[in-house]
Amino acid sequence: MIQSWGYAAPQAKQPLAPFSFERRDPGPNDIVIDIKYCGVCHSDIHQARDEWGGSIFPMVPGHEIVGIVIKVGSAVKNFKEGDRAGVGCMIDSCGHCSSCHSGEEQYCLNGATFTYNSRTNGEPNFGGYSNNIVVQESFAIRISPKLDLAASAPLLCAGVTTYSPLRHWKVGPGMKVGVVGLGGLGHMALKLAHSFGAHVVQFTTSLSKEADARQLGADEVVLSTDPAQMKKHAGSFDFILDTVSAKHDLGALLDQLKVNATMTIVGLPDQPTYLPGRGLIGRRRSLGGSLIGGIRETQEVLDYCADHGIVSDIELIPISKINEAYERVLKSDVKYRFVIDLATLPRP
Amino acid sequence: MIQSWGYAAPQAKQPLAPFSFERRDPGPNDIVIDIKYCGVCHSDIHQARDEWGGSIFPMVPGHEIVGIVIKVGSAVKNFKEGDRAGVGCMIDSCGHCSSCHSGEEQYCLNGATFTYNSRTNGEPNFGGYSNNIVVQESFAIRISPKLDLAASAPLLCAGVTTYSPLRHWKVGPGMKVGVVGLGGLGHMALKLAHSFGAHVVQFTTSLSKEADARQLGADEVVLSTDPAQMKKHAGSFDFILDTVSAKHDLGALLDQLKVNATMTIVGLPDQPTYLPGRGLIGRRRSLGGSLIGGIRETQEVLDYCADHGIVSDIELIPISKINEAYERVLKSDVKYRFVIDLATLPRP
Repeated sequence: MIQSWGYAAPQAKQPLAPFSFERRDPGPNDIVIDIKYCGVCHSDIHQARDEWGGSIFPMVPGHEIVGIVIKVGSAVKNFKEGDRAGVGCMIDSCGHCSSCHSGEEQYCLNGATFTYNSRTNGEPNFGGYSNNIVVQESFAIRISPKLDLAASAPLLCAGVTTYSPLRHWKVGPGMKVGVVGLGGLGHMALKLAHSFGAHVVQFTTSLSKEADARQLGADEVVLSTDPAQMKKHAGSFDFILDTVSAKHDLGALLDQLKVNATMTIVGLPDQPTYLPGRGLIGRRRSLGGSLIGGIRETQEVLDYCADHGIVSDIELIPISKINEAYERVLKSDVKYRFVIDLATLPRP
Repeated sequence: MIQSWGYAAPQAKQPLAPFSFERRDPGPNDIVIDIKYCGVCHSDIHQARDEWGGSIFPMVPGHEIVGIVIKVGSAVKNFKEGDRAGVGCMIDSCGHCSSCHSGEEQYCLNGATFTYNSRTNGEPNFGGYSNNIVVQESFAIRISPKLDLAASAPLLCAGVTTYSPLRHWKVGPGMKVGVVGLGGLGHMALKLAHSFGAHVVQFTTSLSKEADARQLGADEVVLSTDPAQMKKHAGSFDFILDTVSAKHDLGALLDQLKVNATMTIVGLPDQPTYLPGRGLIGRRRSLGGSLIGGIRETQEVLDYCADHGIVSDIELIPISKINEAYERVLKSDVKYRFVIDLATLPRP
């Protein structure tokens, strides 16, 4: 076994604190990554606080993991010691269902194994708020030396979660595309949709974000609480990506779509939200959902971002600030993703 | 003006009763139809009782109208006296928006004019519970002599409302398709999806409908209240058409879909219904909506049904039974569509 250490939530209502644990010795297909940076995703908070139920404690969160390969198994083909490597939201899947066969392990019909808050052979898996991780190479992502390593960590979740639906719904030149929400996901959606050549409109409830949104790639900014602005754009969008997981008025956003167009949600509303049935029927619109992305697509977004000079806007923090960072995430007080510098992790 | 008579709802809470009124003289592009039969749609009841708000009284309902052309304007090209003709849900639209240009007048960006409970030049339009109707030929539908005239009336709304989404989502051989609800819309969806070559599964809350569903075209029948049956089919559908407008559990139905598949609603829930967000995101499913169909597609469904020997299963009633029929519709006590025989209309 490999001695590891990190920060864990001991129980749902307790702050994260230093924690020592062991990881498996690498098998023939595994690599060991010395973790350099790990992004802080809102879903880390939901799970560390057991807000979705069924959380496994103690929990080491973190699924936006980047670092350097320090050991490779005998059968590993795509990584060697010294390479950069990353791990996103998944570390395993059944490998034989139709979703796995099509490279969309996130929709594995037998259930993908998530990076943490999951079990393998009955043993809990621990995430990236730690000094190292052991992962099969087929679930590891190559990270170009062209990318800023810390700022590329959020691409492994926030990046692919927005890239995947933008690609699936074929966002590109000539399309008017809305982005709802300007947080970790929203700011990546803006950058990516802009780079795909779409005319991008940021929906926001706070005009104080206008300048930032434009700097990140928005061609226009619409205050979604202003009926006059909403009316002006009604029925004009080819696609909307809604990154907000707080309860909000989906019907008003759906009315912004053209006939036959789709709005896709990537955040699960944290309270019951009403179905905007009239907006769907009256213009044959669709409401879609999308979950992260598969391993192939995660590699694709990392490579795409390396080629196009795109990374996340981050605030680097020492791990001692993680509990404070959680509170700031809940207040949307971050531009736009916290990334933990694991060099600050105290060795036990 | 043309003297006309029919049955009207004088006010929202009053029964329908005989009513005399006038229709415009036909212009160069109009035809006059002697109405023989008119279907009874659930939306007639919603509007006659002002359940959607804004109803115009007195109201002559009816938008599943079939009859014989008795007069044509000087510029009419596609109809002559003695022809069969029908009128569905719309009698006009702006004609110049992108929806109208693409032959989808139901999504007219300036608002289609519905057959009744609407106004033209400030004057109310009256529907098909009457002896005649004047309509521009571009909104009239040709009805093949091969079709049973009375049983073809429901094709003008129930038929096209199910045909349009089944075509739009490309239902055909090799697909497993669910139909939710077995009423006026559901029974047409079953017949049409079956004739398109799909493997069709009827979802019902009452197994007493099983024999009928199979006779109408269902290959399988699933009791949606039985978790074991639902579990057996979970994740296996390529498309589901949900024809139920009463509140029901959309999440349980959405879970029946494959990855990437769509469920489309054609009925607006009569109470607020929750968005099944988890089912959308977890398998990249979509929830669509669809509204009747355009004039071109209404003609298409009439021609398709003539070629394939499909009509609605109807119960023919005299117009004196209309109020009783409304009560029976509300109890789902009809197999599967009431059609009024306008020969029974009392001449004032």
